[in-house]
Amino acid sequence: MAGPRGEYRKSAERRAQILEAASTVFARTGYSASSVNEIARVVGISQTGVLHHFAGGKPALLQAVLEQRDARAEDRLSGRHGREFLAGLVAISRAQADQRGLVQLYRLLAAEATDPAHPAHEYFSTRFRRIADAVTQAYREVADAGGLRPGLDPRTAALRTLAMTEGLELLWLQGFEVDMAGDIADFLDAHLTDPLARG
Amino acid sequence: MAGPRGEYRKSAERRAQILEAASTVFARTGYSASSVNEIARVVGISQTGVLHHFAGGKPALLQAVLEQRDARAEDRLSGRHGREFLAGLVAISRAQADQRGLVQLYRLLAAEATDPAHPAHEYFSTRFRRIADAVTQAYREVADAGGLRPGLDPRTAALRTLAMTEGLELLWLQGFEVDMAGDIADFLDAHLTDPLARG
Repeated sequence: MAGPRGEYRKSAERRAQILEAASTVFARTGYSASSVNEIARVVGISQTGVLHHFAGGKPALLQAVLEQRDARAEDRLSGRHGREFLAGLVAISRAQADQRGLVQLYRLLAAEATDPAHPAHEYFSTRFRRIADAVTQAYREVADAGGLRPGLDPRTAALRTLAMTEGLELLWLQGFEVDMAGDIADFLDAHLTDPLARG
Repeated sequence: MAGPRGEYRKSAERRAQILEAASTVFARTGYSASSVNEIARVVGISQTGVLHHFAGGKPALLQAVLEQRDARAEDRLSGRHGREFLAGLVAISRAQADQRGLVQLYRLLAAEATDPAHPAHEYFSTRFRRIADAVTQAYREVADAGGLRPGLDPRTAALRTLAMTEGLELLWLQGFEVDMAGDIADFLDAHLTDPLARG
């Protein structure tokens, strides 16, 4: 029989399966048209089974899916500094191209959440500031190593980089022929004395 | 007594008043929390009076407000070519800074409308393509006059400019310290052999 540790592991695995299913269903169907029932069906368990792990229902599943997406993006950046960090932004953009439904969902929620009364306002606002600060820090490190083009301010460069990333994502969702990762790499290069290596 | 022409003019004036009020109320309160009743009160007429001019109610008012905003932006660009057109984009950005509520509303609808099932999908998608084509054309004119930096492609430059504009708007709505008009002017200048005049 599984002891307490075995139970814990089994529960964590089930939780991960549910999140994976929720991510697939949200990305395919959109948030409003999705149901906990459909997510349960993908996992092959009952709706009650899903609610056992996510008592908050669909909003809680969404929150967890978004946090997981963030955590994966942050993994790509963790321990990286300066130019390596900036190159990580390009890698994240490249990975986005396979997650259209999720990117769309994210974008919709981010737009809704610009309203300070929206429940996810604080989450998005904090997340945005954290990213902006991390990118600023990376540009500062590049500047300290003499790799930033003269006359550029790290904070301004960071906010413009963030704006470019967000804007390209939006155009891509609209169906425009943009190469998000390539365009961002070009944009970063315009700030650097030496171009980034292309992956 | 007013003849048919007088009646027509009176009706057009009333319509314009209602649109002005709808724009103010939407921008202040957001779309979902606004009511036709509140808009009627601002104009000083009854709800029935508003519905006489906009039989489709709140969605019809929203559609008309957005079309009016577009028409005003297009007025700023009409008859302009090449560098003058690009300078017009900066002027539009400058005007945005006074219309926070409306910009927020617009952004939310544009995000919702990336879903092809959304009633405004066609409107936003067409509008976006029209702007992209117009900006591409302007860069082409600049290139033909020898004013585009070597190695730049007008279409790529146009899509990146659009991405930058959209992204800066998003950051501004999030409360970041961006100077939309100034940042866009700098971005345009990076594509041009001679900088634009600053207004």
